[in-house]
Amino acid sequence: MLVLGVDPGSVVTGYGLVEKRGQSFRCVDAGVVSASRSRPFQERIHGIYHSMVEIMSRHRPGEMAIEDVFFAKNPKSALKIGHARGAVLIAAVECGVQIHEYAATEIKQAVVGYGKATKEQVRSMVGVLLRLDFKPGLDTSDALAAAVCHLNWTRFGPRNG
Amino acid sequence: MLVLGVDPGSVVTGYGLVEKRGQSFRCVDAGVVSASRSRPFQERIHGIYHSMVEIMSRHRPGEMAIEDVFFAKNPKSALKIGHARGAVLIAAVECGVQIHEYAATEIKQAVVGYGKATKEQVRSMVGVLLRLDFKPGLDTSDALAAAVCHLNWTRFGPRNG
Repeated sequence: MLVLGVDPGSVVTGYGLVEKRGQSFRCVDAGVVSASRSRPFQERIHGIYHSMVEIMSRHRPGEMAIEDVFFAKNPKSALKIGHARGAVLIAAVECGVQIHEYAATEIKQAVVGYGKATKEQVRSMVGVLLRLDFKPGLDTSDALAAAVCHLNWTRFGPRNG
Repeated sequence: MLVLGVDPGSVVTGYGLVEKRGQSFRCVDAGVVSASRSRPFQERIHGIYHSMVEIMSRHRPGEMAIEDVFFAKNPKSALKIGHARGAVLIAAVECGVQIHEYAATEIKQAVVGYGKATKEQVRSMVGVLLRLDFKPGLDTSDALAAAVCHLNWTRFGPRNG
């Protein structure tokens, strides 16, 4: 089972593909989709959509895990994250990838065992769980954590986010 | 010159195509893209994208006018409007339609002559300016107003939103 985890942002969107074989997890691909802040906002958002379609078409994950944003610092940042998150959701529906949403605390709980873990703690545990031979950026590790969280849930039966 | 005005929302997205011939404006098509609240959120957002691509492909407007959202009631509503607005922007980039953004006050000023006009006042003036033989919904009239605002600006030379 191959799951795509995504951590959307209007400047940097992290993604990570995690495969589960038996009881072990493996990172198939991970990285970021990013665009220069100097490019017009709409082109950055379209770039996220376009890159996500490309990644989904290449790897054909059956399911996608993404953070369900309940909270944002302020309306302005919520508006920006909304554009980026919309781009990811549209790509998933377009590619027929099933979407599962998890709260940030659920993802942290699943990976670190503590819902208020820091991003650095999440990265450390993701590195251990997936036996990564590289140190991912925080956007990439958050994306991988979402995928691991979903694979943990599916161990106990399907759950729609 | 054919301009598409859009008023995005996660439940109802208004659109209106306005053509300028000489000094007169004409409404070519207008309406809403809507989806039942009972449908999953991601399908509604994808539906906006899909419908906008369809409308743009059918009418082939050269330019699009959309409200530049500076303000939202709260982070939750900003997040939702961000998803819907992202869907519209992606469709425009995908279809090669040039995007122009205007503040709500600019649109109201251009149509009613008063930046704090109500939505109902905007609808009345849009009806008069375009000699509409129907009473549009408020989402539709806001979209038509954005198109009229852009056509007014272009009278005075190009302006990138």
